[in-house]
Amino acid sequence: MINRGRLEERIERLGRIGRTPEGGVTRLALSDEDRQAQALAAEWMEQAGMSVYRDPAGNLIGRIEGMDREAPPVVIGSHIDTVQNGGKYDGAIGVLGGIEVVQHFREEGLCTFRPIEVIAFCEEEGSRFQSGMFGSRALAGMTGEADLELTDGRGITRREALAGFGLEPGRIGVQAVRRPGEVRAYLEMHIEQGPVLERAGAPVGIVGGIAGPAWMEVSVEGKAGHAGTLPMTMRRDALLGAGEIALLVEHICRSYPGTPVAGTVGRLAVLPGGTNIVPGRALFSVDIRDIDAIRREEIIERVRSGALEIGDRRGLAVRFDERMKIDPVRCSPAIVSLMKEKSLGMKLECLELVSGAGHDAQIMASITDVGMIFVRCKDGVSHHPAEFAEPADIALGTELLARVALELAAR
Amino acid sequence: MINRGRLEERIERLGRIGRTPEGGVTRLALSDEDRQAQALAAEWMEQAGMSVYRDPAGNLIGRIEGMDREAPPVVIGSHIDTVQNGGKYDGAIGVLGGIEVVQHFREEGLCTFRPIEVIAFCEEEGSRFQSGMFGSRALAGMTGEADLELTDGRGITRREALAGFGLEPGRIGVQAVRRPGEVRAYLEMHIEQGPVLERAGAPVGIVGGIAGPAWMEVSVEGKAGHAGTLPMTMRRDALLGAGEIALLVEHICRSYPGTPVAGTVGRLAVLPGGTNIVPGRALFSVDIRDIDAIRREEIIERVRSGALEIGDRRGLAVRFDERMKIDPVRCSPAIVSLMKEKSLGMKLECLELVSGAGHDAQIMASITDVGMIFVRCKDGVSHHPAEFAEPADIALGTELLARVALELAAR
Repeated sequence: MINRGRLEERIERLGRIGRTPEGGVTRLALSDEDRQAQALAAEWMEQAGMSVYRDPAGNLIGRIEGMDREAPPVVIGSHIDTVQNGGKYDGAIGVLGGIEVVQHFREEGLCTFRPIEVIAFCEEEGSRFQSGMFGSRALAGMTGEADLELTDGRGITRREALAGFGLEPGRIGVQAVRRPGEVRAYLEMHIEQGPVLERAGAPVGIVGGIAGPAWMEVSVEGKAGHAGTLPMTMRRDALLGAGEIALLVEHICRSYPGTPVAGTVGRLAVLPGGTNIVPGRALFSVDIRDIDAIRREEIIERVRSGALEIGDRRGLAVRFDERMKIDPVRCSPAIVSLMKEKSLGMKLECLELVSGAGHDAQIMASITDVGMIFVRCKDGVSHHPAEFAEPADIALGTELLARVALELAAR
Repeated sequence: MINRGRLEERIERLGRIGRTPEGGVTRLALSDEDRQAQALAAEWMEQAGMSVYRDPAGNLIGRIEGMDREAPPVVIGSHIDTVQNGGKYDGAIGVLGGIEVVQHFREEGLCTFRPIEVIAFCEEEGSRFQSGMFGSRALAGMTGEADLELTDGRGITRREALAGFGLEPGRIGVQAVRRPGEVRAYLEMHIEQGPVLERAGAPVGIVGGIAGPAWMEVSVEGKAGHAGTLPMTMRRDALLGAGEIALLVEHICRSYPGTPVAGTVGRLAVLPGGTNIVPGRALFSVDIRDIDAIRREEIIERVRSGALEIGDRRGLAVRFDERMKIDPVRCSPAIVSLMKEKSLGMKLECLELVSGAGHDAQIMASITDVGMIFVRCKDGVSHHPAEFAEPADIALGTELLARVALELAAR
């Protein structure tokens, strides 16, 4: 069994770097806090017997050789950057869990056929340069000049920030990129960031896939008027149209029970916005997620046509603008099966669920088979100082990670 | 018949004071522009044979004596202050129409039994000190120290602004206040600020009453969450609750057809307000207006209990805070009848309607009988540079005002 005490202690120690007065953690990518955190993680990687280096994209990589140095490695990864005032579990448990797995193998004298790498990806959160999963995208060959020219709140470019870390971002294409076939499998352990495992009473979950979000910006245009002098029957109230559309999004998304379909109107602005003014305009966001890209299109189409109908009925001009569309990703069925088998061997209740949030794994899926393990977290809270996961649950997830990695690296 | 050309020219001339680049008018109360406008109105009052003075509340008052100097006068009033970048008709046509009525009587040699006063009330709009109908409230004995201590955007108090006009606001109680019985009747002509007359093809309307607004602030408290990781069935989405309540306000208010009942959600804020965050909180305004105070209470109660039901069903805490409640006012049935009779004599189509917006008349109703005449305006627009009323329609309204005032002042 992996060393639960050591893992717990490392999570606490890493969590002290960037600690905020509210008890949270702020550790933006390529900041001083990130530098300290990477140094500590590198030290632990070395203790685990790994050779450590940073690639030109700022990914911290520990590697332990297997019997065949040339065999594509099993990669265990996640990230140690955080959002502003986030928690100490999001990302961190995946990296520290990976180090623990390797250190455990070494202490048990378990030698694998393939190399194992543990990667702390650079800026998964996108909290500094507003563009996340940078490190995994670089590794998968998906970044370009535009990613390097992004600036942070103080006008520093990502290129400059990487150079400040002693890195040469110009060499990403040569030194960081891995091609399909060069990685045997990618494994990631992460807190769930949702309430499903907690509600089911399961400490650990096996991720079947990562839902892809489609973001739209909707504009509803009516006519502003005086709340006292414009009769109800003559109104073209944009807020009422927007309200109906938000409820329609809910209705449509709930008509797929037993699926991870989710639809959210999270932002809404009403103009001109006076107590005694009939709203003339409403602008809002729609976020539709699903694990099935075809079904997601069907849902978007139902929302769009329903919204236009509402607009027609109310005399409102409704416009949809697509802002972002990320394809859903299915985890490797073979790895999911392996995880189920290993969890049965541990007598772990085996709950398969979908990730509604994005992870480096969805990027890595473009170059290799991926598998993800979720660890139950308290109240579904993440990105907040109150984020919490039980050390016992993290240990169970790490043990499962170890057993799966051992099998995948065995041949 | 009143002198339509003179009236039209005066409206244009007054409209040039405070003209904005967009073609609107900005004439805040007690500003330099207001001073110029009052000076011009005073000049016209004198041309009409009136003696002119300002009371300590900044009301500009012109008075022409009748046969009995002691008889309570007929007062014709409105205001010449405007909102920021408003129009040149709102308020102004009532004051200039009143002056035209008196000048017309004089030119026609019509002598009345009672005195007639024309009043341009100070700060009806509340655009400077954010508290409107100041002049009429002062006259009705409804103002206090708090009204004088209000400050404008530059920190100047209303007391200082009045003193800057050479007035002694401390003397409002002694010199401005009129008691019930001291005014025979109050008449006001105003643009409709709504689309009802235009849609009906009527140039002029007779106001049966002024609807009173009840303002509430509603808070809906749910729980924020991640749009990807929080399943639809486990959400307590505050925005969806708010949307349902806004639609309920519409549904309830439309269930009183043929009445002036109106309900509006004009402001809505959603928190925290991220595309990928399930809204945890929504704050919005509800404005309910009716001419019948008892029915308005019934509507508020239906909205409140329906909203609480929606909250229960969705796991949301819904709270209502009353912010303002102004009683509806009925115009004097005798004056409404007189207006109908006089409009028939003019072969004017006689449309009776309700005022959804507030006017000085609703304050004056606390001390005397009131009557209001509405003039059709273009597209229902007011408080905007595009505000417009046809000179012919204003002339018809003024002629009706003259005939009604003549009768009321006759004995």
